[in-house]
Amino acid sequence: MASQKVLEYLDAHRQQHVDQLCDFLRIPSISSQSEHEEDCRRAAAFVAGELKELGLVVETIEAGGLPLVYAQSEIKPERKTLLFYGHYDVQPVDPLELWDHPPFEPMIKNEIVYARGACDDKGQVYTHIKALEAYIKQGIELPVNVKFIIEGEEEAGGESIYRYTEQNPEKLACDAIIVSDTALYNESTPGICYSLKGLAYMEIQLKGPDMDLHSGSYGGTVQNPGNALAEIIAKLKDENGHCLIPGFYDDVLELEPDERAGFAELGYTDEILKKETGAPEAFGEEGFTTLERMWARPTCDVNGLASGYGGEGAKTIIPSRAMAKVSMRLVPNQDPAKIAQLFEKYVLSIAPKGVEVTVIDHHGANPVLVPRKSEMMQAGMKALEEGFGAKPVFIREGGSIPIVGTFQECLKSPVLLLGYGLSTDNIHSPNEKFHLSNFWRGARTTAILMEEAAK
Amino acid sequence: MASQKVLEYLDAHRQQHVDQLCDFLRIPSISSQSEHEEDCRRAAAFVAGELKELGLVVETIEAGGLPLVYAQSEIKPERKTLLFYGHYDVQPVDPLELWDHPPFEPMIKNEIVYARGACDDKGQVYTHIKALEAYIKQGIELPVNVKFIIEGEEEAGGESIYRYTEQNPEKLACDAIIVSDTALYNESTPGICYSLKGLAYMEIQLKGPDMDLHSGSYGGTVQNPGNALAEIIAKLKDENGHCLIPGFYDDVLELEPDERAGFAELGYTDEILKKETGAPEAFGEEGFTTLERMWARPTCDVNGLASGYGGEGAKTIIPSRAMAKVSMRLVPNQDPAKIAQLFEKYVLSIAPKGVEVTVIDHHGANPVLVPRKSEMMQAGMKALEEGFGAKPVFIREGGSIPIVGTFQECLKSPVLLLGYGLSTDNIHSPNEKFHLSNFWRGARTTAILMEEAAK
Repeated sequence: MASQKVLEYLDAHRQQHVDQLCDFLRIPSISSQSEHEEDCRRAAAFVAGELKELGLVVETIEAGGLPLVYAQSEIKPERKTLLFYGHYDVQPVDPLELWDHPPFEPMIKNEIVYARGACDDKGQVYTHIKALEAYIKQGIELPVNVKFIIEGEEEAGGESIYRYTEQNPEKLACDAIIVSDTALYNESTPGICYSLKGLAYMEIQLKGPDMDLHSGSYGGTVQNPGNALAEIIAKLKDENGHCLIPGFYDDVLELEPDERAGFAELGYTDEILKKETGAPEAFGEEGFTTLERMWARPTCDVNGLASGYGGEGAKTIIPSRAMAKVSMRLVPNQDPAKIAQLFEKYVLSIAPKGVEVTVIDHHGANPVLVPRKSEMMQAGMKALEEGFGAKPVFIREGGSIPIVGTFQECLKSPVLLLGYGLSTDNIHSPNEKFHLSNFWRGARTTAILMEEAAK
Repeated sequence: MASQKVLEYLDAHRQQHVDQLCDFLRIPSISSQSEHEEDCRRAAAFVAGELKELGLVVETIEAGGLPLVYAQSEIKPERKTLLFYGHYDVQPVDPLELWDHPPFEPMIKNEIVYARGACDDKGQVYTHIKALEAYIKQGIELPVNVKFIIEGEEEAGGESIYRYTEQNPEKLACDAIIVSDTALYNESTPGICYSLKGLAYMEIQLKGPDMDLHSGSYGGTVQNPGNALAEIIAKLKDENGHCLIPGFYDDVLELEPDERAGFAELGYTDEILKKETGAPEAFGEEGFTTLERMWARPTCDVNGLASGYGGEGAKTIIPSRAMAKVSMRLVPNQDPAKIAQLFEKYVLSIAPKGVEVTVIDHHGANPVLVPRKSEMMQAGMKALEEGFGAKPVFIREGGSIPIVGTFQECLKSPVLLLGYGLSTDNIHSPNEKFHLSNFWRGARTTAILMEEAAK
């Protein structure tokens, strides 16, 4: 049996793979900081080098910003094709003083590796590379054609991967896209994420008088942009959190009964939520459980408010301006552009008298829904179950991964979000980490997936 | 006729008085900056020296902070007594780069003196001192007993003058208090301000989750303090600016018909308001003119809002906290302490679910109303008319001068707010100025007032 030799190889090389991962983690490839551009290019070269050594044809693609690394095995028409996506860049490290050790000097303690990028996403990308390596080094023919596209601008909002995907759908053509950039449901339960929320990020700007006014001299004579902004925000939702923008829910795809049942079985309670967030209580739309609201209901949240004086003590002014950042997390089948329009139209329609109101559309992302019943999904579930030795569950995610929508749209293939991290792995925070057990089980899962996908 | 010789003296010494005022203005007596403490004490000594030279008995009183300068003439029981109040300290000068010349090097251009403190309040205080000087130097007996109390903490919110007034009402006893720390109605129209608004300054703090949350991961599950704050603020007033706090208007003293008529005669239009403020339009409570709202209706204004992310671009968080500063300008007979209580009770009663709400009472000031029909008011109006050569009007002021309320309460005498500045004199701003014509006319007015008050 082919996969047994592959899995034996992975078991025998655990320490070696961890050592190599640490070499990858030592490269401070922070994409949003231009002084790290050379480091990012070194990280790209590291990935390209590994894939080249495994016999793949590798291209380093300059698409405007930091390079894309593309690689493919021999493409045999009779085999299915898997496209592996990931990113070699990492988040900035500040606040550095909150790290227990230097973020680019990986430290292993209790079978956990601590370093920036350990989980997001170098460690997870590396599970794919090491699964491939196991087949190649054991001289076992790959069950599938493999393609890799590894980018370096994920943490910097770069455009290269989008442009390249839109312009090269045939080159990236595949039967499934594998993305390991999310998390297990919890420590003991693996899961496939089959839906991501989309996003419409808006800003409301109000202008009243030309300058801050003395609130004694002019109080009562002009509209106050701070009060007027509050009126607008207060009309976005009712007191139970239901959004009041006309048409907002029109395209919402309601949950299937079996999805609601599946969520309920996960046993997520408001007590867990309160412990995770410190919020006084759970809150949101009536008629839905907390997990349903988190994963499958659109939201409308203030991300920031600013007006007038925010310092200590008192300053008696009528502010000249007021600003709110408001984002809406969208669910399948909502359209970010349409929602942004509805938002703008509604806000302008409820604008109080005496102020000039401007609405800015910052950016959007499409929601994602992957059918749960496909063969590829079944292959993914089987691989997770074998790789992790536990029954996997279907999960959703309230966040957005914009490239996933672009993959679906341009490549017309299912995206398998096989996350090997934990929600407590401190991605984007100090002391990022990755459990080595999840690193090793992730590599096994990926190797098994290649076989299962071929069936 | 005694006053003629007094006025001749003032005319003859115009240039000398301006030169002396410039000496006063050269002292950078910024009370809120401790490095200027010595300068403040020099300014106190300057005032004390002038009054001593005029034969008054002068005390420099250390009452905790910067000294109070107290002075009195011989007190003859058959004469009425006027108490002159003012302050020798000045506002800070930042932003310094917006000044056309150094703020403590007085510059005279087109019969206007430019310097920090020129109008607020050194120039106005000096009109009182020079009026007194005219009587003394001409050897004419003073028509009234005079007392001066000049403080040095007005711009720093100091307590000395309050404590001293409360503890020494007999020493400060008088028939009227004269305060020149406000403005003429406009360039060609002098006025006596007979009412000041009071103040209740509040802060609302909301706490939701313990830290800012990822708005994807937790959107829809917890109350958002930014949204919740907007709900509270939006319920403070209706869409026409009418305050919704129960009991807010209960104690409001309505305007007399003749006051409304007097305001209407002043011809203040919304076009003037728009030009002064740059606001798109006038706005406020229905049933009142703009001037009525400005001068005689209580207000409820946001002074500041802060929550979450206020920078450029986007950050997708549910803020942990949200804060609003809200102040209410109060009219006679509202009580700041009572209004603060009503505010707190109402805000807590409308607090949305899922957040912890705290209300802080920063500080308050009593509104002031001086009867217009007193003999002293008539004396003030007569003095203004003769001093400025134009018919004066009764005006009100939307701002607060807290010490005026304390004087009224402790000394039981009418306060005459005889402002000699202009609203365009840039007090508290760069390029503060004082028209020399108003300086000279102010001194004449004060001299005439002493005679009129004696009648």
